[in-house]
Amino acid sequence: MDQSTLDDAGVFAFGRGEALVQTADFFTPVVDDPFDYGQIAAANALSDVYAMGGTPLTALALLCYPEAQLPPEVVREILRGGLDKMREAGASVIGGHSVRDQELKFGYAVTGVVQRRRLLTNAGARPGDAIVLTKPLGTGVLSTALKQGSLEARLLRRVTRLMAALNRGAAEAAVEFKARAATDVTGYGLIGHAMQMADASQVSLRLFPSPRWFLPRVLEFVAAGVTPGGLKSNREYFGRGVNAGDVDDTLQQGLYDPQTSGGLLLAVPVRRVAPLLAALKRRRTWTAVIGEAIPRAPFAVELRRG
Amino acid sequence: MDQSTLDDAGVFAFGRGEALVQTADFFTPVVDDPFDYGQIAAANALSDVYAMGGTPLTALALLCYPEAQLPPEVVREILRGGLDKMREAGASVIGGHSVRDQELKFGYAVTGVVQRRRLLTNAGARPGDAIVLTKPLGTGVLSTALKQGSLEARLLRRVTRLMAALNRGAAEAAVEFKARAATDVTGYGLIGHAMQMADASQVSLRLFPSPRWFLPRVLEFVAAGVTPGGLKSNREYFGRGVNAGDVDDTLQQGLYDPQTSGGLLLAVPVRRVAPLLAALKRRRTWTAVIGEAIPRAPFAVELRRG
Repeated sequence: MDQSTLDDAGVFAFGRGEALVQTADFFTPVVDDPFDYGQIAAANALSDVYAMGGTPLTALALLCYPEAQLPPEVVREILRGGLDKMREAGASVIGGHSVRDQELKFGYAVTGVVQRRRLLTNAGARPGDAIVLTKPLGTGVLSTALKQGSLEARLLRRVTRLMAALNRGAAEAAVEFKARAATDVTGYGLIGHAMQMADASQVSLRLFPSPRWFLPRVLEFVAAGVTPGGLKSNREYFGRGVNAGDVDDTLQQGLYDPQTSGGLLLAVPVRRVAPLLAALKRRRTWTAVIGEAIPRAPFAVELRRG
Repeated sequence: MDQSTLDDAGVFAFGRGEALVQTADFFTPVVDDPFDYGQIAAANALSDVYAMGGTPLTALALLCYPEAQLPPEVVREILRGGLDKMREAGASVIGGHSVRDQELKFGYAVTGVVQRRRLLTNAGARPGDAIVLTKPLGTGVLSTALKQGSLEARLLRRVTRLMAALNRGAAEAAVEFKARAATDVTGYGLIGHAMQMADASQVSLRLFPSPRWFLPRVLEFVAAGVTPGGLKSNREYFGRGVNAGDVDDTLQQGLYDPQTSGGLLLAVPVRRVAPLLAALKRRRTWTAVIGEAIPRAPFAVELRRG
């Protein structure tokens, strides 16, 4: 799992009342099937645009590939998967760049457009807002299980479908029901991204962790020590800002799992939660109300037994 | 030297009469100094926007880095060099993405804007047009000499300055004097990019190669066999479309040298050559009139003794 150290998305005022939203993301394969990998890389790169309320316009493919080991038909399948997903999102792939590399990496630089007054950021959460998550957690753990050969085909299909799913519906609902803050859950895990939202909004987030937030078998793998390196480093880095209360350690660990193409994390005024959840359900989007924003407290994130 | 296999730049109609011009490029270091490397990577990524007559707006940094081997201050210097050059170009760096990698690579995805009626492409050259080049050739050969420890400090400084120089002035002059076609000379070498212009424009290009087109010592290194792998593969790939006449073999080889952040290749009606050259000279841009477009002939590129 790759970690971003730079910002993930930027906004540039352009035209009357509009802004360009731009982001770049690329990473090593998380699944073996090249078409699926292309789809996931595209959905993941698009996610930052959706997280800001934007509509994707264009994409540039970014490819690092080991020419000697990788048959051209594999590269074609990766690009075809990405293109298919970009088409679904309504984005035009208008170019790209490829370099020879020892290790395969793929992704996109994506440009979207957003009405400036509809821009979603992670800085607007207010005490009392409900916190909503739009995809279940555990893609990092299941990718690790896959690499170790211990993931059954059915669960692989499910996690693949989940990672390849666009956050478009969630973003549309978030804009329609005026979410006060939004971000997408990726490499820093739920806790890391929750903490960024808390810090940017000058609030704390109180979460009530539940096994229901996770894909099947994730907590079982965590308990067996099948976890990606990023989980541990996320916990080391972000754990200091967390009051974990008496929440079960396995559950805690799962909250640090780095996600590929994770869901949106939204802060929504309580009165708009019910219509938002109904709208997400109509779009067949998984949802969980995972906590609430509270006035800024000593810890940016508090965990409570649900 | 990395080779592009995908398109380098894309155009997307946006707003009234405008278009976004987008491009991505990143590569392994061509010089040892991290600040210089950052500057060159930025100038190189910006070049595709200039080659289309565009004005750069935004950039996303793309970084692959070997965390264990690379001190953070080196990464900082690379980013600082890139930022400095982006600032010179008037482009805002609004984000980026970094991944851990065994090998350092750096570059940018750049977005520019262009008036659609002023867009420069490589498809407009007509028989009779003069062909103008705006930077001397040989950066690939000199980078190879550098890696072998046989490049003197003074020449290293000169080639570094050249690779870090923006094509902005050349692009402004090309737009002002209505060049009919433009492209930038990068990984495919002069011949490769000339051939793409010839094919896109349905003409052939007749070039009169001269040692004056090259940086100091380049032909001497070529004669001694100090050449990058890309030179040979460019010749194998593009050589079939070239009638090389009786041009000296060393000189021929130099024309295939892959360039990093090379100059613009312009096709200009003969009556506008003198004012274009004067405008380029005012901008302290190196120039050479290197040939002419002719009606489409059996070979896309013809070389003649000057």
